[in-house]
Amino acid sequence: MKIGIPGIDGFLGWPLAMHLATRGHEVFGIDNLSRRKRVEEVGSWSATPIKSIEERIDTYFKTSGHKIDFYEGDLMEPSFVDLVMKHERPDCLVHLGEIPSAPWSMISRQHCNDTQMNNIIGTNNLLFAMKKHVPKCHLVKLGTMGELGTPNLDIPEGYFDVEYRGRKDRLLFPRNPGSWYHLTKVHDTYNIIFACKIWNLRSTDIMQGVVHGVITDEITHSDLLTRFDFDEVWGTALNRFCAQAVIGHKLTPYGKGGQTRGYIALRDSIQCMTIAAENPPKEGEYRTFNQLSECYSVNDLAEHVVNVYEEFGGSAEIWNIENPRMEAEEHYYNPIVENLPNLGFKPTHSLDDELRITLPVLMKYRHRIEAKSNHIMPTIKWRK
Amino acid sequence: MKIGIPGIDGFLGWPLAMHLATRGHEVFGIDNLSRRKRVEEVGSWSATPIKSIEERIDTYFKTSGHKIDFYEGDLMEPSFVDLVMKHERPDCLVHLGEIPSAPWSMISRQHCNDTQMNNIIGTNNLLFAMKKHVPKCHLVKLGTMGELGTPNLDIPEGYFDVEYRGRKDRLLFPRNPGSWYHLTKVHDTYNIIFACKIWNLRSTDIMQGVVHGVITDEITHSDLLTRFDFDEVWGTALNRFCAQAVIGHKLTPYGKGGQTRGYIALRDSIQCMTIAAENPPKEGEYRTFNQLSECYSVNDLAEHVVNVYEEFGGSAEIWNIENPRMEAEEHYYNPIVENLPNLGFKPTHSLDDELRITLPVLMKYRHRIEAKSNHIMPTIKWRK
Repeated sequence: MKIGIPGIDGFLGWPLAMHLATRGHEVFGIDNLSRRKRVEEVGSWSATPIKSIEERIDTYFKTSGHKIDFYEGDLMEPSFVDLVMKHERPDCLVHLGEIPSAPWSMISRQHCNDTQMNNIIGTNNLLFAMKKHVPKCHLVKLGTMGELGTPNLDIPEGYFDVEYRGRKDRLLFPRNPGSWYHLTKVHDTYNIIFACKIWNLRSTDIMQGVVHGVITDEITHSDLLTRFDFDEVWGTALNRFCAQAVIGHKLTPYGKGGQTRGYIALRDSIQCMTIAAENPPKEGEYRTFNQLSECYSVNDLAEHVVNVYEEFGGSAEIWNIENPRMEAEEHYYNPIVENLPNLGFKPTHSLDDELRITLPVLMKYRHRIEAKSNHIMPTIKWRK
Repeated sequence: MKIGIPGIDGFLGWPLAMHLATRGHEVFGIDNLSRRKRVEEVGSWSATPIKSIEERIDTYFKTSGHKIDFYEGDLMEPSFVDLVMKHERPDCLVHLGEIPSAPWSMISRQHCNDTQMNNIIGTNNLLFAMKKHVPKCHLVKLGTMGELGTPNLDIPEGYFDVEYRGRKDRLLFPRNPGSWYHLTKVHDTYNIIFACKIWNLRSTDIMQGVVHGVITDEITHSDLLTRFDFDEVWGTALNRFCAQAVIGHKLTPYGKGGQTRGYIALRDSIQCMTIAAENPPKEGEYRTFNQLSECYSVNDLAEHVVNVYEEFGGSAEIWNIENPRMEAEEHYYNPIVENLPNLGFKPTHSLDDELRITLPVLMKYRHRIEAKSNHIMPTIKWRK
């Protein structure tokens, strides 16, 4: 099928594009290259040196024979989005084209508003262009488990049965996001549900756990690498721990470290998005996939990094520092994961499996982490 | 106390400003006058002839001795919002400054995006300015019962106790809004909850029913009138029925007419907002008030208008037309209303009481409705 990937130049977008093209799909991407600029803006860079999107597409073509088309442009421009949809007429869009950082959204009013406008209006523009040009197209939308927060309940996939004061209904599970960024994903969710309802569009909304790793089967050459961010703004806690271990810095979980989240290896995330794309819902259907394979606390993560790094002869210590965020540091956490396994998803790599692949890559690029090591510790605070 | 009213030039803002000033509060307003422009844009006008905000403030001062300050400007401008908050340092903001029309938001992609950006970013700018200059200020925010849709359950005020798979938590009641406009109120709700959590701000989020009527105790002179919209874009169903009766047009409920909503008289809405402002929550608290006094189906409304219009010697017929919206036309509806009554709210005017006041006003301005009568029937459709 023809699959479009807004956000193709990002961490997930590029390896997903190669994977889908390798499976025989006709793939095109859209990107405004803003992630590169925003990481530069905070003074950091990817630990892995990444080629331009044009160079990566070219290298992938030369090594695989598969062609990927690319449109440079911004989803905030409705006429641009319209034109691409009219021209390409995709069967599926895997929408990864949003500003994805909680800390970045918390820097200032401007960063909050930029994140909210960019993510909400970009997604709206895709929805309107789908309605106009490709109403049967399937929107696979990247949300986050962070939409749901950490309720003291199991977290269903989308809707759940509610009983209240003697009556019953099936309603969307309540949201409890923890940053201006996470809020945009909630806003998108409600907007997409409405678009499916009024225009009969179809969508898979992915509540994804934290993705870890940097290598996939299609990354056969260093010119095909995807990015690996490790700074306080763009890196996940796990990425920061890996980077800290490799440069001999203590690993710094925030607060008590009991914050528990879902995790999934990059290659398994790509497996899931592929399953979603290749198994579309019916017209008018909005469905939710909780997309994760394991749950860990932040302290667990740090311990796993220490242990696997020791397998490579390294050593690292853990230092719990003050939490710049506002979040429960001890809580129940149990997302239900049934929809993807029912469609055939099988996790292939545990956290440790993937760390054994990731850490050597980072050790190779240790000098690049050292060069930006002053950007790892937290300076952006949630409180006033 | 000092109370600011973003949206002071609107239907609710102006009578609220007079009521609060009459009660001895120091009142200032903010408005970009966009409602007047947007009603003009669709070719319509207010049935009641309304003076400029400056003239109304001047007349109110001359007749009451109470001064109201006014700032013309747009909440989308963060520096403007900042400056007003820094200068005025309000104890309370009653935020009515949003684009309030479901049909307007459904006209086009541009109208959808304008509504979403305007309402979300305007509210964000207020929240950031409060954090910076008046962190103890109480934000009374106008939401809508339309955030909740028509679940097959009683609708609690904000949070509710949930039991799911043997565990319990207290969560925000799930939203199910029915237009791009209603979605903005949901987005605001989540953004405000987050601001209260991270910055210790306080807010009362009002889930308001449909407001009817056009006269309050402070409107003692025609130069003090507030607006009464009756066109398909800016008028409520009830306002359209009143206007149709007065010009001898059939009353046109959409669809089967079983759509049931909460209603409240303008003077009682103002009573509620005054109670909210004068009884602030504690710092850091986010609370929800369901604000309505009666529930009616659309068919009920039409029948009440017919009956009361007959008391004035008129006659009118009802004609159920195709529903341009997507909404349940027969459903359960039972919002819980306890928080406002617990603070002393007592509805003073039923639908019939208020119609007996409203219809004679409209009969006086019949010629103004006749002049724009071609804008009453629906042309904007929810479906593709």
